[in-house]
Amino acid sequence: MIAHPHTKYRALPAIDLPDRRWPSRTIEKAPVWLSTDLRDGNQALFEPMNSERKLTLFHELVRLGFKEIEVGFPAGSQTDFDVVRTLITGRHIPADVTPMVMTQLREEQIVRTIESLQGAPRAIVHFYNAVAPLWREVVFGLSVPQVMQLIERNVRLLKDLTAQHPETEWILQYSPETFCMAELDVSLQACSIAIETWDAGPGRPVIINLPTTVEVSTPNVFADQIEWMHRRLPRREHVVLSVHPHNDRGTGVACAEQALLAGAQRVEGCLFGNGERSGNLDVVTLALNLYANGIDPQLDFSDIAAVARVAENCTALPIHPRHPYVGDLVFTAFSGSHQDAIRKGFAAQKPDGLWRVPYLPIDPQDIGRTYDSIVRVNSQSGKGGIAFLLERDHGIVMPRRMQVEFSAIVQKHADASETEISSAALWNLFERTYLASSTQNGRVRYLSHQLSNPDATQEILLELAVDGIAIHLNGTGNGPIAATVNALRSGLAGLAGLEGLRIDSYEERSIGSGAQAQAWAIVEAASPGVAGTRFGAARHVNIVTASILAVLSAANRLHS
Amino acid sequence: MIAHPHTKYRALPAIDLPDRRWPSRTIEKAPVWLSTDLRDGNQALFEPMNSERKLTLFHELVRLGFKEIEVGFPAGSQTDFDVVRTLITGRHIPADVTPMVMTQLREEQIVRTIESLQGAPRAIVHFYNAVAPLWREVVFGLSVPQVMQLIERNVRLLKDLTAQHPETEWILQYSPETFCMAELDVSLQACSIAIETWDAGPGRPVIINLPTTVEVSTPNVFADQIEWMHRRLPRREHVVLSVHPHNDRGTGVACAEQALLAGAQRVEGCLFGNGERSGNLDVVTLALNLYANGIDPQLDFSDIAAVARVAENCTALPIHPRHPYVGDLVFTAFSGSHQDAIRKGFAAQKPDGLWRVPYLPIDPQDIGRTYDSIVRVNSQSGKGGIAFLLERDHGIVMPRRMQVEFSAIVQKHADASETEISSAALWNLFERTYLASSTQNGRVRYLSHQLSNPDATQEILLELAVDGIAIHLNGTGNGPIAATVNALRSGLAGLAGLEGLRIDSYEERSIGSGAQAQAWAIVEAASPGVAGTRFGAARHVNIVTASILAVLSAANRLHS
Repeated sequence: MIAHPHTKYRALPAIDLPDRRWPSRTIEKAPVWLSTDLRDGNQALFEPMNSERKLTLFHELVRLGFKEIEVGFPAGSQTDFDVVRTLITGRHIPADVTPMVMTQLREEQIVRTIESLQGAPRAIVHFYNAVAPLWREVVFGLSVPQVMQLIERNVRLLKDLTAQHPETEWILQYSPETFCMAELDVSLQACSIAIETWDAGPGRPVIINLPTTVEVSTPNVFADQIEWMHRRLPRREHVVLSVHPHNDRGTGVACAEQALLAGAQRVEGCLFGNGERSGNLDVVTLALNLYANGIDPQLDFSDIAAVARVAENCTALPIHPRHPYVGDLVFTAFSGSHQDAIRKGFAAQKPDGLWRVPYLPIDPQDIGRTYDSIVRVNSQSGKGGIAFLLERDHGIVMPRRMQVEFSAIVQKHADASETEISSAALWNLFERTYLASSTQNGRVRYLSHQLSNPDATQEILLELAVDGIAIHLNGTGNGPIAATVNALRSGLAGLAGLEGLRIDSYEERSIGSGAQAQAWAIVEAASPGVAGTRFGAARHVNIVTASILAVLSAANRLHS
Repeated sequence: MIAHPHTKYRALPAIDLPDRRWPSRTIEKAPVWLSTDLRDGNQALFEPMNSERKLTLFHELVRLGFKEIEVGFPAGSQTDFDVVRTLITGRHIPADVTPMVMTQLREEQIVRTIESLQGAPRAIVHFYNAVAPLWREVVFGLSVPQVMQLIERNVRLLKDLTAQHPETEWILQYSPETFCMAELDVSLQACSIAIETWDAGPGRPVIINLPTTVEVSTPNVFADQIEWMHRRLPRREHVVLSVHPHNDRGTGVACAEQALLAGAQRVEGCLFGNGERSGNLDVVTLALNLYANGIDPQLDFSDIAAVARVAENCTALPIHPRHPYVGDLVFTAFSGSHQDAIRKGFAAQKPDGLWRVPYLPIDPQDIGRTYDSIVRVNSQSGKGGIAFLLERDHGIVMPRRMQVEFSAIVQKHADASETEISSAALWNLFERTYLASSTQNGRVRYLSHQLSNPDATQEILLELAVDGIAIHLNGTGNGPIAATVNALRSGLAGLAGLEGLRIDSYEERSIGSGAQAQAWAIVEAASPGVAGTRFGAARHVNIVTASILAVLSAANRLHS
């Protein structure tokens, strides 16, 4: 079996809480949500977001209904500092949304953090320090009393500094990092010092945020830990009890839900579970779990595909096809018996409007999706389904930005026709949009070409029909694509969009093999006078011809 | 907010179990594992597995240590029937492994199922029928007494049929499908009839398998349901209590763990959580959660990358970079403070051997991985890390099969050098393997080319150096690649591998744009005398030259 012995690990001891109440409770309402997409989510990316992507994601979070958003670690990163300043000075933060920023318990960081927040009407300052024995002993070399002094000293500093800025409503959030691995009485002492030093009271709340920094126990243990704290925290009515689950054991959602049963009022997490290692709590899944149990989640996922698109673009991480609610496959029934049961369920819906369809946990339409008994495409379909059908049936692999472009075209078409679009109809639309552009319906159509001087100074002779009139163009370049572009730029500069034609990317690939092999060419073109880019595509037995046709396809689409 | 009202949903009522014991218990040992990768996992794929992939996955499951494997639905699919026959007649099933097959409660299906199992020393027949009200009423139109009669009649039939085949040790598994949505007393009645009609007793166990067919409640409710059943099932000592969690709410692992606390002894699931919609329980995560708590999981994930490769190849589904334990990012610490803490933890390991490294839930080496403070590549690295570095630093996007080919080359090199491989060293190896093959270290090297007759009958004149001697070859074909292949086949037929040279696929893409743009070409070549395929790659400003170089790169690698 496993070569390395499991005996090098120990489960943490169970919590002594025989009179626990959480397993008998049910969730009655949505928690306060805190998105940490811009902080915990951002710090775990191959490429952290730039300011532009951060602002895009911030606006999306606001649109979804988040009222508390952690926007960064301004004392730790100049980008984060600048983003916080832009959000405040650019008035990007709606009146009912509170930004949060994180800082370590170090004087210079706290000073800098306060500086970043100048002019904000309301702000949460997020203090954290690790309290578990392994961290105290191995990482920081601090005794328990020293840890407590650290908290007291810095909360007092924050209290003094913020008192000098009464124009801002200041809220303290304190997180005993590594809470789930710490002795409960140490965590309680740390939180109590934070609450009392800040002097929590009416109109002066403290957020106490308890993380599973690394998940280490079955999720019932975390619920016990939360209930234990919930019952003992001082000034409890002035404390907002928050949790911050990670997902190392794949139980982040369960920890959050059972913590809500145990007394938590607020949860921190990221869209689709982004975050360090196995991620933070997935707030989308938790929100839709509440929704499926009849509770208004206070977050708007009525167009989940749009949210997925923003998240994927900002994080450059994919969403798995089996991800709850949002994955391409989760509303698809492959089994005939499931398909049959679903059909009967739809037919049997009653006037009371209660959802009673077998195998569909919620009505996919509520989140802008449809039920797919097989993969089908209609106006609600995401780019995933469209891309899948075109690849399966025609071998074309669209780059992601082209998927976005073409799915907008499909959506427009589907909205107009109000019917489901078959794979054949999809192909027809693709053909008309891209392939026919260089041969049938574009202003500039391909007739033939000749290449010469094959190496770094490729020369091309192009025979084209422009508005039906045959012309000949010459061009040179690094290769046939560059030569074609140069021929179009110089020879057809009078056509809008062609004078500054530029190819931003191209891809080619084979489909089939042997004598039946064909080449797919896809190019992405731009022109100074046209916003955005346009894709062109072509298929031909000759890879060079395919490339030239794809350039013409994109060129015609730029000026159409 | 959400346009469609949440009021169309209702949470199921809580379970009345004030004296529940499961939250005070801890898991002490691994459950019996049942893999349903070949059944529940398989039925939810875009393309169900063919016999070959099914056998590959079966052998991998055996290697991992599964002692019970659901191999299909033989009465429902001829492929499944044939696979069961092949497994038995081909003696693929080790003596300590028991196959399971599923069947509906229909006489002709049961007869056919028994037929598929002829000659098996031991087999589990898996009966299921839906018992929840929505299914009884909307899908089947059956009263509760009719449901019970259905179970009794078919279990008796199975008992009679199996009695005629005493050469096989028969085990009944009964699943009240939709258990989590059914009235507990109805489920109990159904299970009791199965247990008693089968006459469970010493040496004649029954498996009672309770699914969350669709997850609908917080995971503590499922634990309550399991404990409720556990306390009431008749002949309990002769019943193996099993659970089959799905993952619609993202809490499949939590349901399984808390069910084990509540009395379950066996769990069903799939590798990496494959299965209908949001998947089945992920058995890998559950097993490694046990491991991380000091419990021998009785499954071998000491080379998790190899398991991932088999699963990805068989299911054609990706594994998410944040998937617990196996994802590319889960042992990566991006944050400097985490990196620092991990370094201190490694330095402070004590002689007792207990694992005490902050932010790493288990020692990555236990599952054949390493800790990556940034993305690094060494002999334990998966193809994901290698592909990431080459794409990030050199713009090359390798097709999946090429990733497999090159990662084997990297592994060989890393094993020999026993050091970590930097991105620069990786690139060097890539360059020597692929790029230099057509220009420096291959027997056939490119000098120049001329194209003519550009369309469907492309003609090429190739100038090559073969073992240092310049030669000229002519070829024609659909395009430059086909023409090059034909020139090599006819002109160099004497070189092993070239006489039957064939291109199975190619891809090209741009890197950079404008004057700096270059083309990457990748081809996959094969030859009748050589097992498998070989990839070739080249980069050139001219897309045609890049293609020709890539063909030569692959051709040289075929006969080297």
